[in-house]
Amino acid sequence: MSFNTFGKIFRFTTWGESHGPAIGCVVDGCPPNIKINIDEIQKDLNKRKPGQSKFTTQRKEDDRVEILSGIFEGKTTGTPISMIIYNKDMRSKDYGNIKNKFRPGHADFTYFEKFIKKNQLFCPDKSVLKLWEKYLLSIRKAGSSCGAIIEIRAKGVPVGLGAPIYSKLDMDLASAMMSINAVKGVNIGSGMNSAQLTGEENSDEINQRGKSTKFNSNNAGGILGGISSGQDIIVSFAVKPTSSILSTRKTIDKFGKNTTISVKGRHDPCVGIRAVPIGEAMMHCVILDHYLLNKAQCGN
Amino acid sequence: MSFNTFGKIFRFTTWGESHGPAIGCVVDGCPPNIKINIDEIQKDLNKRKPGQSKFTTQRKEDDRVEILSGIFEGKTTGTPISMIIYNKDMRSKDYGNIKNKFRPGHADFTYFEKFIKKNQLFCPDKSVLKLWEKYLLSIRKAGSSCGAIIEIRAKGVPVGLGAPIYSKLDMDLASAMMSINAVKGVNIGSGMNSAQLTGEENSDEINQRGKSTKFNSNNAGGILGGISSGQDIIVSFAVKPTSSILSTRKTIDKFGKNTTISVKGRHDPCVGIRAVPIGEAMMHCVILDHYLLNKAQCGN
Amino acid sequence: MSFNTFGKIFRFTTWGESHGPAIGCVVDGCPPNIKINIDEIQKDLNKRKPGQSKFTTQRKEDDRVEILSGIFEGKTTGTPISMIIYNKDMRSKDYGNIKNKFRPGHADFTYFEKFIKKNQLFCPDKSVLKLWEKYLLSIRKAGSSCGAIIEIRAKGVPVGLGAPIYSKLDMDLASAMMSINAVKGVNIGSGMNSAQLTGEENSDEINQRGKSTKFNSNNAGGILGGISSGQDIIVSFAVKPTSSILSTRKTIDKFGKNTTISVKGRHDPCVGIRAVPIGEAMMHCVILDHYLLNKAQCGN
Amino acid sequence: MSFNTFGKIFRFTTWGESHGPAIGCVVDGCPPNIKINIDEIQKDLNKRKPGQSKFTTQRKEDDRVEILSGIFEGKTTGTPISMIIYNKDMRSKDYGNIKNKFRPGHADFTYFEKFIKKNQLFCPDKSVLKLWEKYLLSIRKAGSSCGAIIEIRAKGVPVGLGAPIYSKLDMDLASAMMSINAVKGVNIGSGMNSAQLTGEENSDEINQRGKSTKFNSNNAGGILGGISSGQDIIVSFAVKPTSSILSTRKTIDKFGKNTTISVKGRHDPCVGIRAVPIGEAMMHCVILDHYLLNKAQCGN
Repeated sequence: MSFNTFGKIFRFTTWGESHGPAIGCVVDGCPPNIKINIDEIQKDLNKRKPGQSKFTTQRKEDDRVEILSGIFEGKTTGTPISMIIYNKDMRSKDYGNIKNKFRPGHADFTYFEKFIKKNQLFCPDKSVLKLWEKYLLSIRKAGSSCGAIIEIRAKGVPVGLGAPIYSKLDMDLASAMMSINAVKGVNIGSGMNSAQLTGEENSDEINQRGKSTKFNSNNAGGILGGISSGQDIIVSFAVKPTSSILSTRKTIDKFGKNTTISVKGRHDPCVGIRAVPIGEAMMHCVILDHYLLNKAQCGN
Repeated sequence: MSFNTFGKIFRFTTWGESHGPAIGCVVDGCPPNIKINIDEIQKDLNKRKPGQSKFTTQRKEDDRVEILSGIFEGKTTGTPISMIIYNKDMRSKDYGNIKNKFRPGHADFTYFEKFIKKNQLFCPDKSVLKLWEKYLLSIRKAGSSCGAIIEIRAKGVPVGLGAPIYSKLDMDLASAMMSINAVKGVNIGSGMNSAQLTGEENSDEINQRGKSTKFNSNNAGGILGGISSGQDIIVSFAVKPTSSILSTRKTIDKFGKNTTISVKGRHDPCVGIRAVPIGEAMMHCVILDHYLLNKAQCGN
Repeated sequence: MSFNTFGKIFRFTTWGESHGPAIGCVVDGCPPNIKINIDEIQKDLNKRKPGQSKFTTQRKEDDRVEILSGIFEGKTTGTPISMIIYNKDMRSKDYGNIKNKFRPGHADFTYFEKFIKKNQLFCPDKSVLKLWEKYLLSIRKAGSSCGAIIEIRAKGVPVGLGAPIYSKLDMDLASAMMSINAVKGVNIGSGMNSAQLTGEENSDEINQRGKSTKFNSNNAGGILGGISSGQDIIVSFAVKPTSSILSTRKTIDKFGKNTTISVKGRHDPCVGIRAVPIGEAMMHCVILDHYLLNKAQCGN
Repeated sequence: MSFNTFGKIFRFTTWGESHGPAIGCVVDGCPPNIKINIDEIQKDLNKRKPGQSKFTTQRKEDDRVEILSGIFEGKTTGTPISMIIYNKDMRSKDYGNIKNKFRPGHADFTYFEKFIKKNQLFCPDKSVLKLWEKYLLSIRKAGSSCGAIIEIRAKGVPVGLGAPIYSKLDMDLASAMMSINAVKGVNIGSGMNSAQLTGEENSDEINQRGKSTKFNSNNAGGILGGISSGQDIIVSFAVKPTSSILSTRKTIDKFGKNTTISVKGRHDPCVGIRAVPIGEAMMHCVILDHYLLNKAQCGN
């Protein structure tokens, strides 16, 4: 069953096949008079654009977003915002060829040189970056792939978002992260690890210093009983390794006969990299949705 | 914001405060002519009933469920099914006293003797049961608490449930598990661990032996691209340790002054135990909901 | 397909069969800290209670509502409000007998004397009341039935509730009124009659007198483009005549053979009377729902 | 609050401002493998296209619909269907001029001659057509406008669509019709007139003749208790007269000062004409939605 709408008040519906004429999104329920800068949207889209480094696929897509409705003179009107990205190179029938096409190595190399400095791995700890790059290049060279764990934090989320039963903030965050391709696990705060803590270790002790309230830890990930506590919201999720690998794996064909498969051509050694901006965007949407829901009921 | 309904086609709304006159549930969207045995429902409810062993709280609640609508002569009618559990000992104002009341130790002991054999820990591996019991008793004795990881498997789920975008089967399972109190992490199949696998290790190779298709592993947990694959659906989730512990922890009072807290009285050393039947029930509901959604669109 | 929930933010789910042990309602999404007086709810329920006059059925139901959750010390808590009405005389198997049972005429007469003065016909124009009563008694005497048109007005609704496309205020009002048993038509303002007006007649001219804005007419029924205009919201709906009549009508039996039917026993000569408080309640709910939706998006 | 999605299973979201770069629609929940002919969609769109006759506005819009997703080789894929209509003459800032532009009278005349034979008034009774045309031309000449009542029938709708409480077929039809611009009233079958019938007149007597079941009338409009009965579904709705008229009407300006308004330029003398294909489309959608809902629950 096809349900391509996400959210309760702030809702978006996505559409489009990767090799059709266009892909797009309709955002409904966005309050009016909010400033929207299309360049900011473009910048976020570019983050997940393939072909930017050795670590992601080398196809070049011209992901230029256009806004077709809902924005007037740089502000939302309160009506649905329709956004579209045309597939400039759309050749649906050539899909097989496109998929496996190699791009010249030299261009890749210059790209690599130009952008790495831009931290394409969304790695917050610079000291470990070189290690990651080296590891990913070796994985790519071997035609293998690897998974990733991505952690996203939202700062400044007001206390009180979410509701105790089936509209818990962590339910919607888990659902949102699980909607991202290849995600297999979601944690709030200490997540799966909290099973290994004692009650003493797990308790986030509180300390008052003058006017500021400090928590000694954040095992709860900023959510207690499904409701934001004012601490940073911390969500992490695991992305499984890309299924397309060079190694030969056992499988069956349409007729139920045993055979093997090996996917040649370039592939993402780690699809987790491109999941980072998507996770960020989904987290924004869930928090905004709950912010609006909260306003509906409590007026603040 | 209060959203106490879960599900898309098969929907249930729960209501009731723990110390009010009753708690209940309205199930809407259940197909007609399905045999319902109230004793089966009662049996499932009893699984999560407190006061059954040394491992769960010792309050005794008479959780007798009554069906008020939607069932006629043992079958669903297609109209909403209203179920209610009256709180026989409801004394809202005495809450403080009730909460910390000790029950005589001897009775506990006989209880323990009578039911352990019934495997109150929902432990599928009998060889490890003694170890668990010993550990939990030590935790309880120390006034401490511990977390738990619970794994639930659904066998025989048809291929094709779920949808590719915002109605993925794993999204709804993640959301459902996260709705359970104290759950902080959810895995599908290898879950968070899949981040540490290579593509080769993660691939669930397929083997045909005569008429039966065998997967060599189930890292996917029976869900690929948000859709059931025919393998067992495997979901696991982490429950954090009970917050109420005997140890003294730092906190602040209503006036922002530093103080400490220590929760005396009996408590669940591991709330994860009671989460097992709830997780099972939620998994049933999600799969049934997707089964009905699938029937709506594909007619099978 | 069973969808027994109405509303978007302020939602209620009703359940119960008329001859089951109880009927009830769960209200979800109600903001917290709203004063609720159970006597007011009871008073509204009594308005639609049968057995109060010669104009409605003579069965006596003890429609005493009880609140089981969501209210604490006279105020809403923001959690679901569960309300229940037990069927004191529930004898499901005796349904056939109950349905056609006559009650002694004298009691009816005293009832009639006691309450008519209370304007059981919800007739705002006292001068016409005698005429209505006389007409309804003649209809009842003849074993016939008649329809009704009911008009409901909401005063003081703020400007701006509703939205231009699929959440128009008039859409939800039409849907709500059509949910009432036996309703066959719904008008907003001039409604069906507006088809017979010219543009000149239909235009609600505006006049400013000092600080007050006056409309010369209200053909729009207080809704323009799906959004409340600040004028009174005027909704009217038609209730068809009761199907159960004394006259013999042609029909077929289960086996497809021609036969006739005549419903003996007492019946409502005009079910429209009992539809008045239901229409009022539905209108309240729709307006409250839109009020909350509006607050979510516009913050006022 | 903006809710631009209609439907429960078969859902569509519309977007776009009339003077923006494009308008469009995303249809979600459509079953796969249904043949879609874009020419049929275009033909339906053309029915409501302005500029076709003396009876509708004379602007010419190139309403060419394009499908951007969800259809492959002429069949639905089960993924969202995105449809778009570009505004070729989009000149948002010139809105004021465009609106009041006259088109040469002669061209109008030839148009009139060419298409009237095509029954632009959707009038099923040819004998009355000349009368309608004459009346509408006089209304237009006078710079006035008139309302309309439109009746739509669906034949061959299976018995059993709809549900008894808040998902009644007539609720959703009323809501759908009320979503159309300028609609002020909705009837099912005899609708508002049923209030003036006696129970005897209102009863749709049944007659069996050999293998065929015949109803002597259809006051119910094919819906009983919110569920389709197998008779034709009959819905009628009233469209108010166009607000833009030549006559001078009293109003106030932004500053609360009394003034008058008169809308010069060409306008639709009767917007009800263009509402016919929209009503048809909405009726199709509601019935399809209930068909899918019914399949979800009852499997047929």
